Amino acid sequence: MAEKTGYTYYADPQQVDFTLRMTVPALANEVLNTAGVDAQRKGFGIDKLNKENRSWVLSRMAIEIDDRPEQYTSYEIVTWVNEYNRMLSTRNFTLHDAAGREFGRAVTQWCIIDLAVRKAIDLNTVIGPCTDTLVDAPSPTEKPRKVMGITPQHVMEHRVVYSDIDFNRHVNTMRYINMMFDMLPIEQLTAIRPVRLDIHFMHECRYGQTLTVGYEQRDGLSLFEVSNGEEAAVRAALEWR
Amino acid sequence: MAEKTGYTYYADPQQVDFTLRMTVPALANEVLNTAGVDAQRKGFGIDKLNKENRSWVLSRMAIEIDDRPEQYTSYEIVTWVNEYNRMLSTRNFTLHDAAGREFGRAVTQWCIIDLAVRKAIDLNTVIGPCTDTLVDAPSPTEKPRKVMGITPQHVMEHRVVYSDIDFNRHVNTMRYINMMFDMLPIEQLTAIRPVRLDIHFMHECRYGQTLTVGYEQRDGLSLFEVSNGEEAAVRAALEWR
Repeated sequence: MAEKTGYTYYADPQQVDFTLRMTVPALANEVLNTAGVDAQRKGFGIDKLNKENRSWVLSRMAIEIDDRPEQYTSYEIVTWVNEYNRMLSTRNFTLHDAAGREFGRAVTQWCIIDLAVRKAIDLNTVIGPCTDTLVDAPSPTEKPRKVMGITPQHVMEHRVVYSDIDFNRHVNTMRYINMMFDMLPIEQLTAIRPVRLDIHFMHECRYGQTLTVGYEQRDGLSLFEVSNGEEAAVRAALEWR
Repeated sequence: MAEKTGYTYYADPQQVDFTLRMTVPALANEVLNTAGVDAQRKGFGIDKLNKENRSWVLSRMAIEIDDRPEQYTSYEIVTWVNEYNRMLSTRNFTLHDAAGREFGRAVTQWCIIDLAVRKAIDLNTVIGPCTDTLVDAPSPTEKPRKVMGITPQHVMEHRVVYSDIDFNRHVNTMRYINMMFDMLPIEQLTAIRPVRLDIHFMHECRYGQTLTVGYEQRDGLSLFEVSNGEEAAVRAALEWR
């Protein structure tokens, strides 16, 4: 059995809003960076998978942010993988300020796809020999919730451009989160309030596609659905606490 | 006289395009982060200026990128301030790969504004006592060139949203660069070719404004002008070498 691993970051000026605290999308981005860097250091990163024409793809994510770090302060993201089944591997995170206090947590579920046929691979055939990387510790919060279809009250269109896409040629996760956040009132975004985001990636969105982003406010939840013109591609629910 | 200071970074998965090399906008962003962090460590950062209701504002930037770091490789950004006059302070950068080879360089010119009246302050009244932070070394390349008005061949509209704005409530420099890059053919953006970007910030663009971005291809230069509806706000020239 392995141990949890921590990575230290600084809240950069480019990651804060005018409250001089890191934005939720910037924190989610660093959580995902941590996943990439930790997998790479442990020998199962996308650099290695790409050589076999495979890649990690994020399927679902839940992130809870109770407080947002102030500009120039340091914070730590601790990560561990605690389980996997045929389709999904579960990677967990806790976020801690310089005094060690936990101010956030996340649970992410990933699959590995074969880039030639763009289909998920049975993880047992890949991770089988890597069970010594699992950590015997529970997820720090409820796993990503299923998000159902919505009845949009507001709709925004967005054409996918170069700055939206990632190393897989898909729209970058942070850009999806930004597209959703950008539809909300700025007073809500800059409030210092605990928030939980559940996001579910169903289909890829690609360069040149025109996306529609629907938004519905229902029972204290901000619900979103991104469609790529053919099908619902991403659904998310944002809960302000 | 002071010495140059170096900061080490890693090329994160979130900063690369599908060539698995860092994008030019991501490199420009880290150069600007380095400016912020270095100023803060030396005691004249925005954290200190904000207490006096002042802030650093980038006026002009020239950045040359000969090569782009591969994902997960480390690189160093070395920075120094070598001169200032009444209006502008000049901060320089060189970018080096893990073997120490220089693969890029930048020259930036900054002013300090009074946030109450949004006007530039005479730097002599601020930096006067800080001349011991100047480094006796020339700028690593030609200073930012003046970019003249353009005759746009293509125009794009963009409404300024939360994810576009920075700690000054202005559109973030990286977002301007992304808006411009996103108008170019993707084959040009993903080619591994030396490039120089000159960018000139004339007026602020703010939350809720609708911007127009004009693009003209002329004599091997990609020329851009961002207007906030009232006036030309940003001009830039991109030279592929």
